[in-house]
Amino acid sequence: MSGAAFDWIDAAHDHRRRAGLVRTLRPRPAASPLLDLAGNDYLGLARHPEVTDAAARAARQWGAGATGSRLVTGSTELHAQLEAELAAFCGFEAALVLSSGYAANLAAVTALTDRTTLLVSDAGNHASLIDGCRLSRARTEVTPHADPEAVRAALTGHEGRALAVTDSVFSVDGDAAPLGALAAACRAHGAALLVDDAHGLGVLGDGGRGAVAAAGLAGDADVVTTVTLSKALGSQGGAVLGPARVIEHLVNTARSFIFDTGLAPAAAGGALAALRLLRREPQRSRRAREVAATLHTRLTAAGLPSVRPDAAVVSVQAPSPQQAVRWAADCREAGLAVGCFRPPSVPDGISRLRLTARGDLTDDQVDTAVGVIIATAPAG
Amino acid sequence: MSGAAFDWIDAAHDHRRRAGLVRTLRPRPAASPLLDLAGNDYLGLARHPEVTDAAARAARQWGAGATGSRLVTGSTELHAQLEAELAAFCGFEAALVLSSGYAANLAAVTALTDRTTLLVSDAGNHASLIDGCRLSRARTEVTPHADPEAVRAALTGHEGRALAVTDSVFSVDGDAAPLGALAAACRAHGAALLVDDAHGLGVLGDGGRGAVAAAGLAGDADVVTTVTLSKALGSQGGAVLGPARVIEHLVNTARSFIFDTGLAPAAAGGALAALRLLRREPQRSRRAREVAATLHTRLTAAGLPSVRPDAAVVSVQAPSPQQAVRWAADCREAGLAVGCFRPPSVPDGISRLRLTARGDLTDDQVDTAVGVIIATAPAG
Ligand SMILES: Cc1ncc(COP(=O)(O)O)c(C=O)c1O
Ligand SMILES: Cc1ncc(COP(=O)(O)O)c(C=O)c1O
Repeated sequence: MSGAAFDWIDAAHDHRRRAGLVRTLRPRPAASPLLDLAGNDYLGLARHPEVTDAAARAARQWGAGATGSRLVTGSTELHAQLEAELAAFCGFEAALVLSSGYAANLAAVTALTDRTTLLVSDAGNHASLIDGCRLSRARTEVTPHADPEAVRAALTGHEGRALAVTDSVFSVDGDAAPLGALAAACRAHGAALLVDDAHGLGVLGDGGRGAVAAAGLAGDADVVTTVTLSKALGSQGGAVLGPARVIEHLVNTARSFIFDTGLAPAAAGGALAALRLLRREPQRSRRAREVAATLHTRLTAAGLPSVRPDAAVVSVQAPSPQQAVRWAADCREAGLAVGCFRPPSVPDGISRLRLTARGDLTDDQVDTAVGVIIATAPAG
Repeated sequence: MSGAAFDWIDAAHDHRRRAGLVRTLRPRPAASPLLDLAGNDYLGLARHPEVTDAAARAARQWGAGATGSRLVTGSTELHAQLEAELAAFCGFEAALVLSSGYAANLAAVTALTDRTTLLVSDAGNHASLIDGCRLSRARTEVTPHADPEAVRAALTGHEGRALAVTDSVFSVDGDAAPLGALAAACRAHGAALLVDDAHGLGVLGDGGRGAVAAAGLAGDADVVTTVTLSKALGSQGGAVLGPARVIEHLVNTARSFIFDTGLAPAAAGGALAALRLLRREPQRSRRAREVAATLHTRLTAAGLPSVRPDAAVVSVQAPSPQQAVRWAADCREAGLAVGCFRPPSVPDGISRLRLTARGDLTDDQVDTAVGVIIATAPAG
């Protein structure tokens, strides 16, 4: 072919390069020497022998792949077991497992809306909820971040179906949504509420049952929750939790469920083992919150502006994108992996280091992390 | 909450029930007694001990999950190895692994288009390509199925960027796209071509290198291909293959890549082992095509209308949705699992049995399958 059809990409690349925004993949070895405060393995279960053993056994027993859509050959008894235990743990009538949290959000938003539905979406929502809104044919009204009054105003006067969507814990700053007030706003207007509890499951609520359970909304007839199996449960996949009729509707209509191969048995097995471990050792979720509080207190005391964490994400502001990148690189140099958020991933334009308060960190590791972050902080 | 926000679902359910279109999940046991011609495990590798061993080892060595986005902690050396070998095998400069083929299609379509791009999409394309078109902000023109002249006409007169998208092998009827003619049409108009080779990889081309390689288009500067790791490679995940600058662009801009946890190590390890097995035993792909040809020949000879298969999917027409469901149920009763496509999954409204010609089927198993399908065929 002519070879020129993608020439526009070179200009896009130059633009990114000049702005200092080029991202590159950095494959890690199996045994990394870095102390990891960058990943989302909130409870340290991704490498727990019970979890990896269960994943390995599932691959051997059920095969490396699910072999088809969940509607054809891709539903195993392992998937059904995971769905039953996940629904029971989180306090919902039913659950549906998909291949990712991203796919779960697309499924929930698109299957629960039509052209007549009003979607009300928090300005700080995760990209997968936003993509769900874009993919749906509903009219979407974006409300200011964490503002139940704005949700109420958006719903006021709308006739017909409405769905409000929100993260439970926002992925950039780690702040929690005002779920109770949001539910009240929805209730007043007959709207349904969809909560993405990706960062709440395993961390918030009694024994890690999640932010929706903590807010007393689990099992509510008008509430649907999505979770990911890839953060606190240390595996891969996602799930939608809700009333049985909602789950049955998704099975029949959600395109990102129907037209996607079922989750690999190893991922389902790993997540199920992690869930059982969490049920047995509920203190893991408390420890993650405790580590987050310690990180925040000590960094703030050192003069580093950090949002008070509602869950296990701790966000520390950086003066500029360039200094954020430099700061993260200096941490890495000193043996500490931290996340680095900068435009365009942060809607407000403020660059940040993003720390994950893993529940399996020792006090010594927390000390080390705090020391490195303070020592490498940009002057000013 | 009021409990009524989802009442509309009951009407949708009744509507499906009256139309005989309710789908339910049927979880299977680990050792199913059924002969499986329904799944997409084209080469029978999902349960091959080399593949399941590799998946199990990867879970133990790298963890049950990738722990983060590929851009943060989710890229392991295992992902990089899989990408290198997949690109080399299929004849492309670079590859990017995502959590599913669905996510790979969303990534490729959305990252390679903007508001000024003309998207030209085959009417028979897979739902994940269609969802990619919907999620992109490009104007999409849908062309009649497998019609390169229509693609040429759609591109004529358009100024600026254009991208034509097509399945290589269409998932409903198993017919192949006219890739050479499509590439010529794109070339004549400076357009790029995106081919979803989900059903071609492992089945078509020299040693299973796929339909794009078979058409002499692998590595072309204007061609991008997506594949899934969940069919011939028996695992889970997807990949985009193309020029290095395209892959670099996706790493920086594709939302379904950036905002999704990396593929679980077990899935990456399983797919890599399957790829190596296929390289060592290239006859596996020929055998899948041979089984497809036999199924088609024998069913046609028995008076059952079946599309001549271009790959390993064999589609047999049924007189009505109800009879298709009944036929598939009778096959299952007789020990044979077959797929059943009916509205709304089939755009033309024709219901079908869908058979997968697995390359690991013995002649006896093919005999059995043909016998059952003929014996249970609806009268008329
Ligand atoms: C709030 C939120 N929702 C959804 C997701 C997507 O989940 P997954 O990675 O399983 O696709 C993520 C992160 O990946 C997230 O942070
Ligand atoms: C043509 C085609 N493209 C893409 C996909 C999606 O791949 P995955 O199941 O890995 O999401 C499928 C089937 O699942 C398919 O048939």
